Order: sequence, then structure tokens, then C-alpha cells
Amino acid sequence: MASNAIRRSKPVEPPSSDSETRARDDHHDSLRLWLRLLSCSTLIESHIRQRLQSEFATTLPRFDLMAQLERCPEGLKMGELSRRLMVTGGNVTGITDMLEKEGLVARLIDSQDRRAFRVKLTPSGQRLFKRMAAEHERWIIDLFEGLPSRGKQQLAGLLHDLKIHVRQQKRLRVENPV
Amino acid sequence: MASNAIRRSKPVEPPSSDSETRARDDHHDSLRLWLRLLSCSTLIESHIRQRLQSEFATTLPRFDLMAQLERCPEGLKMGELSRRLMVTGGNVTGITDMLEKEGLVARLIDSQDRRAFRVKLTPSGQRLFKRMAAEHERWIIDLFEGLPSRGKQQLAGLLHDLKIHVRQQKRLRVENPV
Repeated sequence: MASNAIRRSKPVEPPSSDSETRARDDHHDSLRLWLRLLSCSTLIESHIRQRLQSEFATTLPRFDLMAQLERCPEGLKMGELSRRLMVTGGNVTGITDMLEKEGLVARLIDSQDRRAFRVKLTPSGQRLFKRMAAEHERWIIDLFEGLPSRGKQQLAGLLHDLKIHVRQQKRLRVENPV
Repeated sequence: MASNAIRRSKPVEPPSSDSETRARDDHHDSLRLWLRLLSCSTLIESHIRQRLQSEFATTLPRFDLMAQLERCPEGLKMGELSRRLMVTGGNVTGITDMLEKEGLVARLIDSQDRRAFRVKLTPSGQRLFKRMAAEHERWIIDLFEGLPSRGKQQLAGLLHDLKIHVRQQKRLRVENPV
């Protein structure tokens, strides 16, 4: 039973800010599973936030913004950047202004659309991001170190299935609204 | 190999705002696993945000704040509420002000510490939250509907193991800083 697997966690009560503590005995297994997934990602994300702060005096929204730009050497328009960063939130314009002041990004006039700007990493932004990304990868490797590789492999497969499934369900809902 | 499980997802490329698209072939399997976990939770969370907006004209930080209060019928001090809501962010004071104006929460003087306020749900806040929580549970059940229950059970077990492991690694780091 899924509920048994879930109840296994009881002896190690998460701290009160943990999403999973919202789960109650009368909650459906799917809800418990979601709250557990959320608490895992929140736990790891908070670790990344702490380390970005302590080692680079920076924030996750800044790191995410630079990560998006690093993937697009030709730069991104502000609207596209906002769309890609929808999730972490943060004020994209404010962050871009700060990074520009620090010489890590530059705003350039778009060659196709002269009314629009493209934002891209400067060489110094590229160097800093490269260092941060290498450390970020190291933090995750350290955090996951010691987990049985068979378990990680199963988890990757199950999360893949979950992602495909959730996408399909969302698509169905859009096509057949109630 | 975990990387095989991860590469299975290739035919169904996620949209560009998906965290997992950051993963590259030279990325370590642990990083790929983390980006996959993050993209799942982001995907589900964005669904919840959309439905809270479309069905209750409300936001996730408001919902989360009410969820914390619902678990504490005696109310919470502002500092405690902020700490618990650290993750979803949002301006706790601003949200509390709005909810108070709408008659959904009340600020009361703390009986132990007369300089502090406690915030609690009003009866009307309790009624609204109950309706929202029931719908929220239904959205998650619908989203997970059709996933094989053995897979859900395995996923719950693996996420449990991951959570315990990550907590231990974080604790080790605090006790033995490099």
C-alpha cells in the first residue's frame, strides 16, 4: 500500500515548515505523495539558496537568470526571459538592472527588432556563471552522494513517468474543460 | 545506468522553461535527477497556481498562509508564520493585511506576550479554506489519476529515502563544515 510507504516516514518527523506535515491521515495518497515530492524539492532548493548566499553572496533568482542567458549566447529578449523565469519569480527587470550594474550582463539592441533589447552575459558574467554552475553541480552531487545508484535510477524513471503523465492530464484538461 | 533512465525522456522534450532542459549530456546524473525532480514539482505547482487563480481568484502564497493557520487553531505569531512560509516567499505582512481586510483572518493580542499579535483564521476564513483544500485535493487526485499504484507506492518510498538522506547530508555539513 502506498499509504504504508508514506507512513514509514513517521518516526523521522520533518520540521514544522515542511510541506509534508500538512498531510493528514484522512488525506488521499496522491495528495500525500505530492506533498512529499514538494517537501523534497523544497529541502534541496533551500540548500542551494543557502550555499549560493554563503559562497557567492547571490540569490537563486539571479543564478537562474544567468543560467537562462548562458544557454542562449545570442541573448534573450526581456519578455522571453520573464517567461522562462516565471517559476522562481523575482523581479526580472530589477535583477537585470543589478547584474548590468555589476558588469555581468549587457543589454543590446535587437538586430531584428530595433525597439527591443536583448540581454546577454558579458565575458565576466560567463566566467562567474561557469564557476557557480560547477559549484552548484558539486553541491548536488554531495547531497545525493551515498544514495544507492539503483534507487536513483528508479527514481529518475518514476519521475519521468510522472512528468509525462501530469503533462498529459493537463493537456486533456485544456482540451476538455469541465 | 541512471543516465539511460534519464535519456528515456528525450522523445518528449519539455518546453524551454522547464528546469530539466538545463541538463546537458556532460552533467552528472545526480544533477540531472535533481533537475527532473524540480521540473516535476514546478509543473504540478504551476497547475495548482492556475487553478487557485481560475477557481478562487487567489494565489498560492495566500493559500499556503491560510493552510498554516488552519493547522494552528490557536493562531500563529507573525514571526512564526513568516518562518513557516519562508519557501513560497510572498510578503507575509502584506498578505495578512489583505486577508484581514477581507475578513478571512484576524489579528489578536497574544495572551502570553501582550506586545505580540497572533493571527488566526476567522470562521469565514475557515469555511473558505475548507472549500479550497477539498478542491486542491481533488486537483491532485485528478492529476495523478491513472498512474499505476505500484509506481506511486515506489515513488513515495524513494522520495522518503531521498528526504532522509538529504537531511542527513545537510546535518553532516552543519556539524563538519569544510
